[in-house]
Amino acid sequence: MRRYTSPDEVAFHPASVPAPLLPPLAYPPVLDAAASASLNLNDQVLAAYLGVCLPALAAPGDDGNYGSAAVADVAALQALSKRVHYGQFVAEAKFRADPAGYAALAQAHDRAGIYDRLTDAGVEAAVLARVRAKAAAFGADVDPEADTGGPPADSSSPKVDPAAVAGLYADVVLPLTKEVQVRYLLTRGLAWDG
Amino acid sequence: MRRYTSPDEVAFHPASVPAPLLPPLAYPPVLDAAASASLNLNDQVLAAYLGVCLPALAAPGDDGNYGSAAVADVAALQALSKRVHYGQFVAEAKFRADPAGYAALAQAHDRAGIYDRLTDAGVEAAVLARVRAKAAAFGADVDPEADTGGPPADSSSPKVDPAAVAGLYADVVLPLTKEVQVRYLLTRGLAWDG
Repeated sequence: MRRYTSPDEVAFHPASVPAPLLPPLAYPPVLDAAASASLNLNDQVLAAYLGVCLPALAAPGDDGNYGSAAVADVAALQALSKRVHYGQFVAEAKFRADPAGYAALAQAHDRAGIYDRLTDAGVEAAVLARVRAKAAAFGADVDPEADTGGPPADSSSPKVDPAAVAGLYADVVLPLTKEVQVRYLLTRGLAWDG
Repeated sequence: MRRYTSPDEVAFHPASVPAPLLPPLAYPPVLDAAASASLNLNDQVLAAYLGVCLPALAAPGDDGNYGSAAVADVAALQALSKRVHYGQFVAEAKFRADPAGYAALAQAHDRAGIYDRLTDAGVEAAVLARVRAKAAAFGADVDPEADTGGPPADSSSPKVDPAAVAGLYADVVLPLTKEVQVRYLLTRGLAWDG
């Protein structure tokens, strides 16, 4: 269904993706083709999902629901992959705002310099606050009595700990997104000649 | 993956479901096998989804995203089917609370009598209030500034109109769920001999 022809989708098994049955769509050319082409951090996404996310979110044990679990795993992995690889669009925007700066760092192979330049602690803190608020809102039990224009959700008994969700963002999502940005900018800046 | 061996799953294309690769699970025998076996309202679920739900929820037009739309459609249809067919469990509970009453109606082929007996206007109103509250909470834009123990979601700008969601419950989900209950109780009661 041409899913992996979309610039915001990255396949976990690119060699196994069949040719689309639907004709191609014309996406606006936002990303640099060379910088984007080989960028695939899904092995790291899978490792972080299995090694960090699942132990933090799932109770230990075997409930026998392998089919349901596999369906949920695939949906979660694809969402996580998509979010992490959005870093390419962030990196492209940062590059366009400062091409000479990133090009100089890339041409010096200064990975740490790129990392420092793209890091914005204020933005990261705002992202984590937003994740925490979303987890509190969407993980709440809903009290129908409260449907009076007041608070619609009861945040005192969340189904998932908002701090744990924000912790996974801090420990998994943000670092992987920044790794995507660093890799993208290394290639993007190397080819830039002003 | 043995999905359609679960008593709370009903296939849209039962003739096309392959044999499970996984060994069968032992589900607690809650439903009456004869009443449940032939009960499949998925044709009506699909018709209601296409004819009522989509026109109420989706803007007219063609955005070209056929693959994404098909994935979302399948997820929505399976959730809707599952919710509607939960009516079997509701009907079984109602039968156990009043077997002689439902058996007499079933043996008289009194479909309208069964419908009236299983209808509880107070419960239905509470379900609709809860749906409305959930749509308001989970469809809200989240304001991270509000992560202070106060209302976590801004219900003043929902992404989807809570009244429209409650309307679909009233127009589609509840009637189909009650049709499932009526059909289940007709078979369940017919075979009952006290």
